[in-house]
Amino acid sequence: MHQSNPGMQTCIEACLRCYQECVAMSTSHCLDLGGEHARPVHIQLMQSCAEICRATAHVLNIGSPHHRRLCADCAEICMDCGADCERLGQMDVCVAACRACAEQCRKMAA
Amino acid sequence: MHQSNPGMQTCIEACLRCYQECVAMSTSHCLDLGGEHARPVHIQLMQSCAEICRATAHVLNIGSPHHRRLCADCAEICMDCGADCERLGQMDVCVAACRACAEQCRKMAA
Amino acid sequence: MHQSNPGMQTCIEACLRCYQECVAMSTSHCLDLGGEHARPVHIQLMQSCAEICRATAHVLNIGSPHHRRLCADCAEICMDCGADCERLGQMDVCVAACRACAEQCRKMAA
Amino acid sequence: MHQSNPGMQTCIEACLRCYQECVAMSTSHCLDLGGEHARPVHIQLMQSCAEICRATAHVLNIGSPHHRRLCADCAEICMDCGADCERLGQMDVCVAACRACAEQCRKMAA
Repeated sequence: MHQSNPGMQTCIEACLRCYQECVAMSTSHCLDLGGEHARPVHIQLMQSCAEICRATAHVLNIGSPHHRRLCADCAEICMDCGADCERLGQMDVCVAACRACAEQCRKMAA
Repeated sequence: MHQSNPGMQTCIEACLRCYQECVAMSTSHCLDLGGEHARPVHIQLMQSCAEICRATAHVLNIGSPHHRRLCADCAEICMDCGADCERLGQMDVCVAACRACAEQCRKMAA
Repeated sequence: MHQSNPGMQTCIEACLRCYQECVAMSTSHCLDLGGEHARPVHIQLMQSCAEICRATAHVLNIGSPHHRRLCADCAEICMDCGADCERLGQMDVCVAACRACAEQCRKMAA
Repeated sequence: MHQSNPGMQTCIEACLRCYQECVAMSTSHCLDLGGEHARPVHIQLMQSCAEICRATAHVLNIGSPHHRRLCADCAEICMDCGADCERLGQMDVCVAACRACAEQCRKMAA
């Protein structure tokens, strides 16, 4: 773990939490709800968000200086995903995970 | 998150912890130590362990019944990785993460 | 690339092809079709298959001897995924990719 | 596969090729050579490049419009990784894969 940089570990955990929510929700809850929740455009956004969060956690974990731009991207897709989840409703846990991840990623990108 | 199955969430967290340790150690600590720690056979084992832990967490997260065999595999590679790390020494956190992951994966595979 | 072992490279390519089909189909074609194609149980199977194929390709690529059990698992989930896709219909390319991957993985697991 | 957009499929394949080279080289060839090839800074760069290539291929494969920024990032890290591999020498196949991936990613980012 990155004990030498607590901000990095906090960001990794926020990314992995958001990744987990987006994967779990988009493969069960959203499909169960149907309608707009199950449309390709929403599922694709959630799954892209999950993948970018997972990759960002990985690059932070590797400790490469190349994490900055990826963190900036991750913050942006998390904000988009959180906004879409909020608009559709019944996605509160996911909205919170997306926004928490965006906040940590913005700090790491700075 | 898998609030309906606490064992599943515990296993996901153990997998992600082991994944994180194996990635972080094999891309810095082991290479810094050099010698046997930096040999391909050790790095390949750690990175394969990291990948299987990450994939197991993903499949558990998806909620697919196909996690059982993967959990059994994950337990096995984690035991091998933990044993190799213990043999080389100076890898205590990684040894503990591997064994904790193996224990949770065995429960999920049962 | 693994020029020293052509079977390994063939298997990596079959895994990555199956991974690609399962991701692309389960995030657009299946959701567009709706009905059984868009039910959680089918999407979860396709996405679990995609993840195991991706992880198997990764471990083969690393060159670790720990690929055998993972290849055996991958062959099994690919056969299950191919069977489910065939049963639902309108998934011919995915069925073919799953079976081609299973065949190569069985060879590597032997 | 993305038959409706040949550029997308070409980019996915360039990303997966670069990912494969970076993983395979950084877990065997570079460690066997030792010296600068096996230093954490080089291995971390190659493995970060591999991960971003893999994630970019995934997001392209999902078909999400959020691939643009990720493609731009991927092009940048591929250029850095290719330059570092060229500087160290004995990495010609990896240099070529990095540059081919950067070229395709720049097209998709435009």
